[in-house]
Amino acid sequence: MEFSSKLLERAVNEMSQLPGIGKRTALRLVLHMLKQPKEQATALSEALLNMRNDVKFCKSCYNISDVEICEICSNPVRDQSIVCVVEDVRDVMAIENTNSFKGLYHVLGGKISPMDGIGPHDLNVQSLVDKVKEGKIKELFFALSSTMEGDTTNFYIFKQIQDYNIFTSTIARGISVGDELEYADEITLSRSIVNRVPFENSLKL
Amino acid sequence: MEFSSKLLERAVNEMSQLPGIGKRTALRLVLHMLKQPKEQATALSEALLNMRNDVKFCKSCYNISDVEICEICSNPVRDQSIVCVVEDVRDVMAIENTNSFKGLYHVLGGKISPMDGIGPHDLNVQSLVDKVKEGKIKELFFALSSTMEGDTTNFYIFKQIQDYNIFTSTIARGISVGDELEYADEITLSRSIVNRVPFENSLKL
Repeated sequence: MEFSSKLLERAVNEMSQLPGIGKRTALRLVLHMLKQPKEQATALSEALLNMRNDVKFCKSCYNISDVEICEICSNPVRDQSIVCVVEDVRDVMAIENTNSFKGLYHVLGGKISPMDGIGPHDLNVQSLVDKVKEGKIKELFFALSSTMEGDTTNFYIFKQIQDYNIFTSTIARGISVGDELEYADEITLSRSIVNRVPFENSLKL
Repeated sequence: MEFSSKLLERAVNEMSQLPGIGKRTALRLVLHMLKQPKEQATALSEALLNMRNDVKFCKSCYNISDVEICEICSNPVRDQSIVCVVEDVRDVMAIENTNSFKGLYHVLGGKISPMDGIGPHDLNVQSLVDKVKEGKIKELFFALSSTMEGDTTNFYIFKQIQDYNIFTSTIARGISVGDELEYADEITLSRSIVNRVPFENSLKL
Protein backbone atom coordinates (compact mmCIF):
# COMPACT_ATOMS: atom_id res chain seq x y z
CA MET A 1 0.00 0.00 0.00
CA GLU A 2 1.56 3.31 -1.07
CA PHE A 3 0.55 6.51 0.65
CA SER A 4 0.60 10.01 -0.75
CA SER A 5 1.36 11.42 2.71
CA LYS A 6 3.83 10.37 5.40
CA LEU A 7 1.47 11.68 8.11
CA LEU A 8 -1.32 9.49 6.78
CA GLU A 9 1.02 6.52 6.48
CA ARG A 10 2.24 6.86 10.07
CA ALA A 11 -1.31 7.15 11.42
CA VAL A 12 -2.40 4.07 9.45
CA ASN A 13 0.66 2.10 10.57
CA GLU A 14 0.13 2.93 14.24
CA MET A 15 -3.60 2.18 14.01
CA SER A 16 -2.96 -1.19 12.39
CA GLN A 17 -0.85 -2.25 15.42
CA LEU A 18 -4.14 -2.79 17.25
CA PRO A 19 -5.40 -6.39 17.26
CA GLY A 20 -7.89 -7.20 14.51
CA ILE A 21 -7.25 -3.92 12.68
CA GLY A 22 -5.57 -4.47 9.31
CA LYS A 23 -4.11 -1.79 7.06
CA ARG A 24 -7.32 -1.35 5.07
CA THR A 25 -9.49 -0.98 8.16
CA ALA A 26 -6.94 1.41 9.67
CA LEU A 27 -7.05 3.52 6.50
CA ARG A 28 -10.86 3.58 6.60
CA LEU A 29 -10.82 4.70 10.25
CA VAL A 30 -8.15 7.34 9.71
CA LEU A 31 -9.89 8.79 6.62
CA HIS A 32 -13.11 8.93 8.64
CA MET A 33 -11.30 10.97 11.29
CA LEU A 34 -10.16 13.40 8.60
CA LYS A 35 -13.81 14.11 7.74
CA GLN A 36 -14.74 14.73 11.39
CA PRO A 37 -14.03 17.95 13.32
CA LYS A 38 -10.49 18.27 14.68
CA GLU A 39 -11.85 18.18 18.22
CA GLN A 40 -12.82 14.54 17.80
CA ALA A 41 -9.27 13.47 16.90
CA THR A 42 -7.94 15.55 19.80
CA ALA A 43 -10.42 13.97 22.22
CA LEU A 44 -9.53 10.45 21.10
CA SER A 45 -5.78 11.09 21.31
CA GLU A 46 -6.03 12.64 24.76
CA ALA A 47 -8.35 9.95 26.08
CA LEU A 48 -5.99 7.18 24.95
CA LEU A 49 -2.91 8.95 26.30
CA ASN A 50 -4.47 9.80 29.66
CA MET A 51 -5.86 6.31 30.03
CA ARG A 52 -2.51 4.67 29.24
CA ASN A 53 -0.49 6.97 31.49
CA ASP A 54 -2.77 7.49 34.47
CA VAL A 55 -4.91 4.40 34.85
CA LYS A 56 -4.20 2.45 38.03
CA PHE A 57 -4.71 -1.12 39.07
CA CYS A 58 -6.37 -1.70 42.44
CA LYS A 59 -3.67 -2.76 44.92
CA SER A 60 -5.95 -5.38 46.40
CA CYS A 61 -7.76 -7.03 43.46
CA TYR A 62 -5.81 -5.73 40.40
CA ASN A 63 -8.98 -4.48 38.74
CA ILE A 64 -8.61 -1.27 36.69
CA SER A 65 -9.31 1.72 38.90
CA ASP A 66 -8.77 5.47 39.16
CA VAL A 67 -7.80 5.15 42.83
CA GLU A 68 -5.44 2.91 44.81
CA ILE A 69 -8.19 0.66 46.19
CA CYS A 70 -11.05 0.17 43.73
CA GLU A 71 -14.73 0.90 44.43
CA ILE A 72 -15.58 -2.76 44.77
CA CYS A 73 -12.84 -3.55 47.29
CA SER A 74 -13.60 -0.45 49.35
CA ASN A 75 -17.38 -0.99 49.38
CA PRO A 76 -18.33 -1.98 52.95
CA VAL A 77 -21.62 -3.52 51.78
CA ARG A 78 -19.88 -6.24 49.78
CA ASP A 79 -19.07 -9.61 51.29
CA GLN A 80 -15.33 -9.50 52.03
CA SER A 81 -15.19 -13.22 52.79
CA ILE A 82 -15.83 -14.48 49.24
CA VAL A 83 -13.39 -13.80 46.41
CA CYS A 84 -14.13 -14.47 42.76
CA VAL A 85 -10.99 -15.32 40.73
CA VAL A 86 -11.18 -14.03 37.16
CA GLU A 87 -8.83 -13.80 34.21
CA ASP A 88 -9.18 -10.13 33.31
CA VAL A 89 -11.05 -6.87 33.75
CA ARG A 90 -13.71 -7.74 31.18
CA ASP A 91 -14.77 -10.72 33.28
CA VAL A 92 -15.29 -8.42 36.27
CA MET A 93 -17.49 -6.19 34.12
CA ALA A 94 -19.47 -9.15 32.77
CA ILE A 95 -20.11 -10.54 36.25
CA GLU A 96 -20.93 -7.09 37.70
CA ASN A 97 -23.51 -6.62 34.92
CA THR A 98 -25.44 -9.64 36.18
CA ASN A 99 -25.85 -8.22 39.72
CA SER A 100 -25.58 -11.82 40.94
CA PHE A 101 -22.31 -11.60 42.84
CA LYS A 102 -21.76 -9.44 45.91
CA GLY A 103 -18.30 -10.51 47.00
CA LEU A 104 -14.86 -9.24 45.96
CA TYR A 105 -12.73 -10.08 42.93
CA HIS A 106 -9.17 -11.07 42.23
CA VAL A 107 -7.96 -10.36 38.68
CA LEU A 108 -5.17 -12.75 37.67
CA GLY A 109 -4.25 -10.86 34.51
CA GLY A 110 -4.22 -14.00 32.36
CA LYS A 111 -4.10 -17.77 32.52
CA ILE A 112 -1.19 -20.17 33.00
CA SER A 113 -0.19 -21.09 29.46
CA PRO A 114 3.20 -22.78 28.97
CA MET A 115 2.73 -22.62 25.18
CA ASP A 116 2.71 -18.81 25.38
CA GLY A 117 5.43 -18.75 28.03
CA ILE A 118 3.05 -17.56 30.77
CA GLY A 119 3.73 -19.15 34.15
CA PRO A 120 2.19 -18.52 37.60
CA HIS A 121 4.83 -15.87 38.32
CA ASP A 122 3.60 -13.73 35.42
CA LEU A 123 0.14 -13.61 37.02
CA ASN A 124 -1.25 -12.19 40.27
CA VAL A 125 -1.28 -15.62 41.89
CA GLN A 126 1.06 -15.13 44.86
CA SER A 127 -0.94 -12.14 46.14
CA LEU A 128 -4.08 -14.30 46.05
CA VAL A 129 -2.37 -17.06 48.02
CA ASP A 130 -1.19 -14.43 50.52
CA LYS A 131 -4.78 -13.19 50.92
CA VAL A 132 -5.92 -16.72 51.67
CA LYS A 133 -3.08 -17.14 54.20
CA GLU A 134 -4.31 -14.05 56.06
CA GLY A 135 -7.41 -16.09 56.91
CA LYS A 136 -10.10 -13.51 56.07
CA ILE A 137 -11.44 -15.41 53.05
CA LYS A 138 -14.01 -18.15 53.56
CA GLU A 139 -14.73 -19.00 49.93
CA LEU A 140 -12.66 -18.84 46.75
CA PHE A 141 -14.89 -18.87 43.67
CA PHE A 142 -13.12 -19.74 40.40
CA ALA A 143 -14.66 -18.08 37.34
CA LEU A 144 -12.04 -18.77 34.65
CA SER A 145 -12.95 -19.97 31.18
CA SER A 146 -13.13 -23.74 30.86
CA THR A 147 -10.19 -24.18 28.54
CA MET A 148 -7.13 -26.26 29.26
CA GLU A 149 -5.32 -23.10 30.40
CA GLY A 150 -8.22 -22.10 32.65
CA ASP A 151 -8.42 -25.54 34.23
CA THR A 152 -4.63 -25.62 34.72
CA THR A 153 -4.74 -22.23 36.45
CA ASN A 154 -7.64 -23.30 38.68
CA PHE A 155 -5.79 -26.46 39.66
CA TYR A 156 -2.48 -24.67 40.33
CA ILE A 157 -4.15 -22.18 42.67
CA PHE A 158 -6.19 -24.92 44.32
CA LYS A 159 -2.98 -26.85 45.08
CA GLN A 160 -1.41 -23.76 46.64
CA ILE A 161 -4.30 -23.07 48.99
CA GLN A 162 -5.73 -26.51 49.76
CA ASP A 163 -4.05 -26.68 53.16
CA TYR A 164 -5.76 -23.52 54.38
CA ASN A 165 -9.16 -25.17 54.74
CA ILE A 166 -11.33 -22.70 52.83
CA PHE A 167 -14.29 -23.55 50.65
CA THR A 168 -13.57 -23.46 46.89
CA SER A 169 -16.26 -23.30 44.25
CA THR A 170 -16.27 -23.01 40.47
CA ILE A 171 -18.71 -21.38 38.10
CA ALA A 172 -21.44 -23.81 36.94
CA ARG A 173 -21.00 -25.43 33.53
CA GLY A 174 -24.19 -26.36 31.76
CA ILE A 175 -26.54 -25.78 28.86
CA SER A 176 -26.89 -22.05 28.09
CA VAL A 177 -30.35 -20.59 28.67
CA GLY A 178 -32.20 -20.77 25.33
CA ASP A 179 -29.96 -23.51 23.87
CA GLU A 180 -31.25 -26.82 22.52
CA LEU A 181 -30.06 -29.98 24.30
CA GLU A 182 -29.37 -31.83 21.06
CA TYR A 183 -26.72 -29.30 19.98
CA ALA A 184 -24.81 -29.27 23.29
CA ASP A 185 -21.41 -30.94 23.33
CA GLU A 186 -21.04 -34.15 25.32
CA ILE A 187 -18.84 -32.78 28.11
CA THR A 188 -21.16 -29.84 28.79
CA LEU A 189 -24.23 -32.09 28.70
CA SER A 190 -22.69 -34.72 30.96
CA ARG A 191 -21.53 -32.07 33.48
CA SER A 192 -24.99 -30.50 33.48
CA ILE A 193 -26.48 -33.90 34.32
CA VAL A 194 -23.98 -34.78 37.06
CA ASN A 195 -24.32 -31.31 38.62
CA ARG A 196 -28.10 -31.09 38.29
CA VAL A 197 -29.72 -28.63 40.72
CA PRO A 198 -32.93 -28.72 42.78
CA PHE A 199 -35.81 -27.59 40.56
CA GLU A 200 -36.76 -24.75 42.90
CA ASN A 201 -33.36 -23.11 42.22
CA SER A 202 -34.27 -22.64 38.55
CA LEU A 203 -37.29 -20.59 39.58
CA LYS A 204 -35.19 -17.97 41.36
CA LEU A 205 -33.98 -16.06 38.30
CA MET B 1 -21.64 -1.35 30.34
CA GLU B 2 -20.28 -0.12 33.68
CA PHE B 3 -16.63 0.80 33.99
CA SER B 4 -14.49 0.71 37.10
CA SER B 5 -12.46 3.69 35.83
CA LYS B 6 -13.50 7.00 34.28
CA LEU B 7 -10.26 7.10 32.25
CA LEU B 8 -11.04 3.70 30.78
CA GLU B 9 -14.64 4.70 30.11
CA ARG B 10 -13.61 7.88 28.28
CA ALA B 11 -11.07 6.02 26.13
CA VAL B 12 -13.66 3.37 25.22
CA ASN B 13 -16.29 6.00 24.44
CA GLU B 14 -13.98 7.97 22.16
CA MET B 15 -12.75 4.83 20.45
CA SER B 16 -16.30 3.66 19.78
CA GLN B 17 -17.01 6.88 17.85
CA LEU B 18 -15.07 5.35 14.96
CA PRO B 19 -17.20 3.65 12.29
CA GLY B 20 -17.63 -0.10 12.76
CA ILE B 21 -16.11 -0.04 16.28
CA GLY B 22 -18.68 -0.89 18.94
CA LYS B 23 -18.23 -0.59 22.69
CA ARG B 24 -17.03 -4.16 23.11
CA THR B 25 -14.46 -3.90 20.34
CA ALA B 26 -13.33 -0.54 21.71
CA LEU B 27 -12.86 -2.11 25.15
CA ARG B 28 -10.85 -4.96 23.64
CA LEU B 29 -8.60 -2.50 21.78
CA VAL B 30 -8.12 -0.24 24.79
CA LEU B 31 -7.30 -3.14 27.14
CA HIS B 32 -4.80 -4.38 24.56
CA MET B 33 -3.12 -0.96 24.64
CA LEU B 34 -2.85 -1.22 28.42
CA LYS B 35 -0.79 -4.40 28.03
CA GLN B 36 1.56 -2.78 25.51
CA PRO B 37 4.43 -0.42 26.38
CA LYS B 38 3.40 3.19 26.99
CA GLU B 39 5.39 4.26 23.93
CA GLN B 40 2.90 2.52 21.66
CA ALA B 41 -0.05 4.50 23.02
CA THR B 42 1.99 7.70 22.78
CA ALA B 43 2.96 6.92 19.19
CA LEU B 44 -0.65 6.22 18.19
CA SER B 45 -1.96 9.37 19.87
CA GLU B 46 0.69 11.58 18.31
CA ALA B 47 0.31 10.03 14.87
CA LEU B 48 -3.45 10.60 14.89
CA LEU B 49 -3.14 14.15 16.20
CA ASN B 50 -0.39 15.14 13.77
CA MET B 51 -2.24 13.57 10.88
CA ARG B 52 -5.50 15.35 11.72
CA ASN B 53 -3.88 18.72 12.32
CA ASP B 54 -1.15 18.86 9.69
CA VAL B 55 -2.30 16.81 6.74
CA LYS B 56 -2.91 18.87 3.60
CA PHE B 57 -4.99 18.35 0.52
CA CYS B 58 -3.25 18.99 -2.82
CA LYS B 59 -4.46 22.34 -4.17
CA SER B 60 -4.74 20.93 -7.65
CA CYS B 61 -6.23 17.43 -7.30
CA TYR B 62 -7.42 17.37 -3.65
CA ASN B 63 -5.51 14.18 -2.93
CA ILE B 64 -4.06 13.90 0.60
CA SER B 65 -0.54 15.27 0.61
CA ASP B 66 2.17 16.63 2.91
CA VAL B 67 2.88 19.51 0.54
CA GLU B 68 0.74 22.05 -1.31
CA ILE B 69 0.96 20.31 -4.69
CA CYS B 70 1.07 16.52 -4.37
CA GLU B 71 3.78 14.26 -5.78
CA ILE B 72 1.54 13.03 -8.57
CA CYS B 73 0.54 16.50 -9.79
CA SER B 74 4.10 17.80 -9.61
CA ASN B 75 5.63 14.79 -11.37
CA PRO B 76 6.76 15.98 -14.84
CA VAL B 77 6.81 12.41 -16.22
CA ARG B 78 3.04 12.01 -15.83
CA ASP B 79 0.65 12.87 -18.62
CA GLN B 80 -0.89 16.23 -17.65
CA SER B 81 -3.50 16.02 -20.39
CA ILE B 82 -5.53 13.13 -18.94
CA VAL B 83 -7.37 13.47 -15.62
CA CYS B 84 -8.95 10.58 -13.76
CA VAL B 85 -12.01 11.60 -11.70
CA VAL B 86 -12.33 9.57 -8.48
CA GLU B 87 -14.50 9.67 -5.38
CA ASP B 88 -11.87 9.61 -2.66
CA VAL B 89 -8.25 9.09 -1.68
CA ARG B 90 -8.58 5.34 -1.43
CA ASP B 91 -9.49 5.15 -5.12
CA VAL B 92 -6.29 7.02 -6.00
CA MET B 93 -4.32 4.49 -3.97
CA ALA B 94 -6.12 1.54 -5.59
CA ILE B 95 -5.47 2.85 -9.11
CA GLU B 96 -1.86 3.78 -8.32
CA ASN B 97 -1.28 0.23 -7.08
CA THR B 98 -2.13 -1.14 -10.53
CA ASN B 99 0.58 0.98 -12.28
CA SER B 100 -1.83 1.17 -15.23
CA PHE B 101 -2.58 4.89 -15.18
CA LYS B 102 0.03 7.58 -15.79
CA GLY B 103 -2.13 10.71 -15.88
CA LEU B 104 -3.32 13.00 -13.09
CA TYR B 105 -6.24 12.63 -10.67
CA HIS B 106 -9.09 14.78 -9.43
CA VAL B 107 -10.56 13.73 -6.09
CA LEU B 108 -14.21 14.79 -5.77
CA GLY B 109 -14.48 13.99 -2.07
CA GLY B 110 -17.73 12.08 -2.48
CA LYS B 111 -20.62 11.49 -4.85
CA ILE B 112 -23.73 13.54 -5.53
CA SER B 113 -26.36 12.01 -3.26
CA PRO B 114 -29.57 13.99 -2.68
CA MET B 115 -30.69 11.37 -0.13
CA ASP B 116 -27.70 12.25 2.07
CA GLY B 117 -27.99 15.96 1.28
CA ILE B 118 -24.78 16.02 -0.78
CA GLY B 119 -25.02 18.23 -3.86
CA PRO B 120 -22.39 19.26 -6.45
CA HIS B 121 -21.41 22.26 -4.34
CA ASP B 122 -20.30 20.00 -1.49
CA LEU B 123 -17.82 18.32 -3.82
CA ASN B 124 -14.75 19.49 -5.75
CA VAL B 125 -16.73 19.75 -9.00
CA GLN B 126 -16.35 23.44 -9.88
CA SER B 127 -12.55 23.27 -9.70
CA LEU B 128 -12.65 20.34 -12.14
CA VAL B 129 -14.85 22.30 -14.56
CA ASP B 130 -12.44 25.24 -14.25
CA LYS B 131 -9.52 22.96 -15.12
CA VAL B 132 -11.35 21.81 -18.24
CA LYS B 133 -12.10 25.44 -19.19
CA GLU B 134 -8.38 26.24 -19.06
CA GLY B 135 -8.03 23.93 -22.05
CA LYS B 136 -5.03 21.87 -20.92
CA ILE B 137 -6.99 18.64 -20.49
CA LYS B 138 -7.58 16.39 -23.49
CA GLU B 139 -9.29 13.47 -21.76
CA LEU B 140 -11.46 13.21 -18.67
CA PHE B 141 -11.58 9.64 -17.37
CA PHE B 142 -14.44 8.85 -14.95
CA ALA B 143 -13.59 6.16 -12.40
CA LEU B 144 -16.50 6.43 -9.95
CA SER B 145 -18.32 3.39 -8.62
CA SER B 146 -21.25 2.28 -10.76
CA THR B 147 -24.01 3.08 -8.31
CA MET B 148 -26.87 5.45 -8.92
CA GLU B 149 -24.92 8.19 -7.11
CA GLY B 150 -21.79 7.50 -9.15
CA ASP B 151 -23.71 7.61 -12.44
CA THR B 152 -25.50 10.81 -11.38
CA THR B 153 -22.17 12.45 -10.55
CA ASN B 154 -20.63 11.34 -13.87
CA PHE B 155 -23.61 12.71 -15.77
CA TYR B 156 -23.65 16.02 -13.89
CA ILE B 157 -19.98 16.65 -14.63
CA PHE B 158 -20.39 15.49 -18.23
CA LYS B 159 -23.20 18.04 -18.74
CA GLN B 160 -21.02 20.83 -17.34
CA ILE B 161 -18.09 20.15 -19.67
CA GLN B 162 -19.69 18.81 -22.85
CA ASP B 163 -19.34 22.11 -24.68
CA TYR B 164 -15.57 22.17 -24.25
CA ASN B 165 -14.95 19.42 -26.77
CA ILE B 166 -12.72 17.10 -24.76
CA PHE B 167 -12.71 13.32 -24.88
CA THR B 168 -14.48 11.66 -21.93
CA SER B 169 -14.05 8.01 -20.99
CA THR B 170 -15.30 5.80 -18.21
CA ILE B 171 -13.75 2.81 -16.49
CA ALA B 172 -14.67 -0.50 -18.22
CA ARG B 173 -17.48 -2.55 -16.68
CA GLY B 174 -17.26 -6.27 -17.24
CA ILE B 175 -16.76 -9.71 -15.77
CA SER B 176 -14.04 -9.68 -13.09
CA VAL B 177 -10.95 -11.71 -13.89
CA GLY B 178 -11.44 -15.16 -12.39
CA ASP B 179 -15.25 -14.88 -12.21
CA GLU B 180 -17.64 -17.37 -13.78
CA LEU B 181 -19.98 -16.04 -16.52
CA GLU B 182 -23.03 -17.83 -15.10
CA TYR B 183 -22.87 -15.90 -11.80
CA ALA B 184 -22.51 -12.43 -13.36
CA ASP B 185 -25.50 -10.10 -13.11
CA GLU B 186 -27.37 -9.28 -16.34
CA ILE B 187 -26.33 -5.63 -16.61
CA THR B 188 -22.64 -6.40 -16.17
CA LEU B 189 -22.83 -9.29 -18.63
CA SER B 190 -24.73 -7.28 -21.24
CA ARG B 191 -22.30 -4.34 -20.95
CA SER B 192 -19.33 -6.69 -21.28
CA ILE B 193 -20.85 -8.05 -24.50
CA VAL B 194 -21.70 -4.64 -26.01
CA ASN B 195 -18.27 -3.25 -25.09
CA ARG B 196 -16.27 -6.32 -26.14
CA VAL B 197 -12.63 -5.60 -26.93
CA PRO B 198 -10.24 -6.88 -29.62
CA PHE B 199 -8.79 -10.22 -28.50
CA GLU B 200 -5.21 -8.97 -28.74
CA ASN B 201 -5.95 -6.39 -26.00
CA SER B 202 -6.57 -9.20 -23.49
CA LEU B 203 -3.05 -10.51 -24.08
CA LYS B 204 -1.42 -7.27 -22.94
CA LEU B 205 -1.74 -7.78 -19.19
